[in-house]
Amino acid sequence: MSTCVTYISLNLDLDMSRFSSGIDLADREGKSRKRSLNVSNQTTTMPESYPMNGGDSTYSYTKNSYFQKTAINIAKSMIDEAIVDYLDIKEFSSESLNNNTFCIADLGCSVGPNTFNSMQNIIEAVQQKYQSQLGQIPDFQIFFNDHVSNDFNTLFSSLPPETERRYFAAGVPGSFHDRLFPNSSLHFVHSSYAIHWLSKLPEELLDENSPAWNRGRIQYCKAYAAQFAKDTARFLDARAKEIMVGGMLVLIMPSIPNNVPHSMFDLLGSSFMDLAKEELISEAQVDSFNLPLYAASPKEMTELINQNGFFSIVRMELNNLFSCIDSQTTGKSCTMHLRAALEGIIVKHFGSKVIDEVFHRLYEKTQEFSERLESSYKEGTQLVLVLKRKLK
Amino acid sequence: MSTCVTYISLNLDLDMSRFSSGIDLADREGKSRKRSLNVSNQTTTMPESYPMNGGDSTYSYTKNSYFQKTAINIAKSMIDEAIVDYLDIKEFSSESLNNNTFCIADLGCSVGPNTFNSMQNIIEAVQQKYQSQLGQIPDFQIFFNDHVSNDFNTLFSSLPPETERRYFAAGVPGSFHDRLFPNSSLHFVHSSYAIHWLSKLPEELLDENSPAWNRGRIQYCKAYAAQFAKDTARFLDARAKEIMVGGMLVLIMPSIPNNVPHSMFDLLGSSFMDLAKEELISEAQVDSFNLPLYAASPKEMTELINQNGFFSIVRMELNNLFSCIDSQTTGKSCTMHLRAALEGIIVKHFGSKVIDEVFHRLYEKTQEFSERLESSYKEGTQLVLVLKRKLK
Repeated sequence: MSTCVTYISLNLDLDMSRFSSGIDLADREGKSRKRSLNVSNQTTTMPESYPMNGGDSTYSYTKNSYFQKTAINIAKSMIDEAIVDYLDIKEFSSESLNNNTFCIADLGCSVGPNTFNSMQNIIEAVQQKYQSQLGQIPDFQIFFNDHVSNDFNTLFSSLPPETERRYFAAGVPGSFHDRLFPNSSLHFVHSSYAIHWLSKLPEELLDENSPAWNRGRIQYCKAYAAQFAKDTARFLDARAKEIMVGGMLVLIMPSIPNNVPHSMFDLLGSSFMDLAKEELISEAQVDSFNLPLYAASPKEMTELINQNGFFSIVRMELNNLFSCIDSQTTGKSCTMHLRAALEGIIVKHFGSKVIDEVFHRLYEKTQEFSERLESSYKEGTQLVLVLKRKLK
Repeated sequence: MSTCVTYISLNLDLDMSRFSSGIDLADREGKSRKRSLNVSNQTTTMPESYPMNGGDSTYSYTKNSYFQKTAINIAKSMIDEAIVDYLDIKEFSSESLNNNTFCIADLGCSVGPNTFNSMQNIIEAVQQKYQSQLGQIPDFQIFFNDHVSNDFNTLFSSLPPETERRYFAAGVPGSFHDRLFPNSSLHFVHSSYAIHWLSKLPEELLDENSPAWNRGRIQYCKAYAAQFAKDTARFLDARAKEIMVGGMLVLIMPSIPNNVPHSMFDLLGSSFMDLAKEELISEAQVDSFNLPLYAASPKEMTELINQNGFFSIVRMELNNLFSCIDSQTTGKSCTMHLRAALEGIIVKHFGSKVIDEVFHRLYEKTQEFSERLESSYKEGTQLVLVLKRKLK
């Protein structure tokens, strides 16, 4: 089990939904949810598809996804304020003589319904600003982006009915590490729980002779951080071309406080190592289990944004999604949350026999290390960044 | 069997593909092709899904689709010339200060590959004009539109690789009888073998007491023509808002020469009536078999375009797709072509027992009426219309 990706925080259920495919309507109701990871150039043992926990049992995704609503609500108020304070709508309205369309993209939208809620929130805030400042409301065009393998059929059939939505909808297939839109064609870009997915596992992890291969923790961390930095640089380069000057880029992502080393995933990794010591699973199995995720700290994101140079940071907040949960139950909540999100991928790699045991160990560890755990998360695990496209 | 929709011509294989859904990659190779009609408010006995003839047997779609290439090639040269002669690129380039993107939509695109070829042809012609007149090439953004039930997943996974295509791609789900795009946001709109599909069967056909119900041929024709007129008026109204002044609208559609009353479908209807007389099928079955298609004449289209008032007709041509086929084999070709396209829908309505017999009768009738048939089609069955958005 890697220890670097342990910084991913507990928002993994949101994360996974970025890369889902083959979800039918029944799936979206939590009955037979299938998810698939879709990482380009992937050559490791990562499963290509694994189930989320369906139904409404104790460990179901449905019963453990209240973090989603919390996350969206926290981001909503920040986005609303940023639109009021920083969006340059007067500049936009003078730039196009021929039409009056406000273009928004959601990058890594999955199949809904979260993307529809987020887009609706943004539209309402922008409308209000147009109405109060210019006395008129623009047309809206929303571009829903995700990987080619995303289930766009489900996304399209789930769109709010035309009578209810106030926008023209389009789907854009492709990786957001590359260009997706024409130059200066977007006014607002939103991406929630998407950019922490690496475009590929660092190559060092695929080489058994590399110090990063076998529990070389420091090397391993550096490799993940370096891959994230490369990916984010590509992401920002592409967006700098696509977003017009004065437009906004909102990133919502799992994060860790600067210099915080411990997390639930450390404990999960440690739980796996316990099982390996007892020879219930092999150490090789643990070593080859990797998740191509990276949760950057606010400091790391600030550096990457400054290196790019085309965006100014107008808001940056690390939110503690767990502040609303009774601290007595944090360990149990975190364990169940993680189990709902990860059971599928773990069963695929390790088999189903150890699943109860590994989460039992994890729960015990959360009790043992509860103080350390709570202090790690106190500062927050969700980063909301509001950037404004400036002239370089 | 209706006699009015018999005017649909023999291009039905192209037509059907407009409304396909659930086509996987194997399907596209002709192995297990599934098609579905998707007509809003449909309350008749029309099947919702039926197979095209797969494989590479005598009656397969694959072996009987050479009309497609002919159709695309004929339209290509007309579109190329119209772009050279009529597209107002200087007007476009002065209209947007902030970006330089040429936006194209293909309405009723299905899942490819025809749409990709058509879009590539248009892009090349537009590029050439920009290069020669302005010395620069714009970005291109292509919007692929079809009904929500179209298989956009297949469409997106079939897109030419990013290294080969020179455009940003987006999918737009929804009916082209309604608005799909913001005001004045498109430079060029293309729609091939799509607008002849009626948005619904005329209501008279669903009423057993209507004179249109039971072989009331004249009433029946009027009902189809009226529905097509309503649909086309809505289509043109929406496009007039979406296409900027100076932009183009190209419509490729099955058609009939003005005042020509006979076609292959008459003969097919007559074949069914023969079987009903011999009590192999019931007359009620024949009467309730309707296809929501209408092939308008050039005269009808001209009237509808003039009523709308926002487009000038810069080119209009009725093409004879069969001119390239040896006249000796026309009857056989037509019969096989029709069988490949319609076998699925016929089997679903009438059962499989009569299928060989009905097409045998049809072939005999093509021999009997070969002169009449050839003269009916001599003037052409494919209409290509190049329209330019003008100020009203």
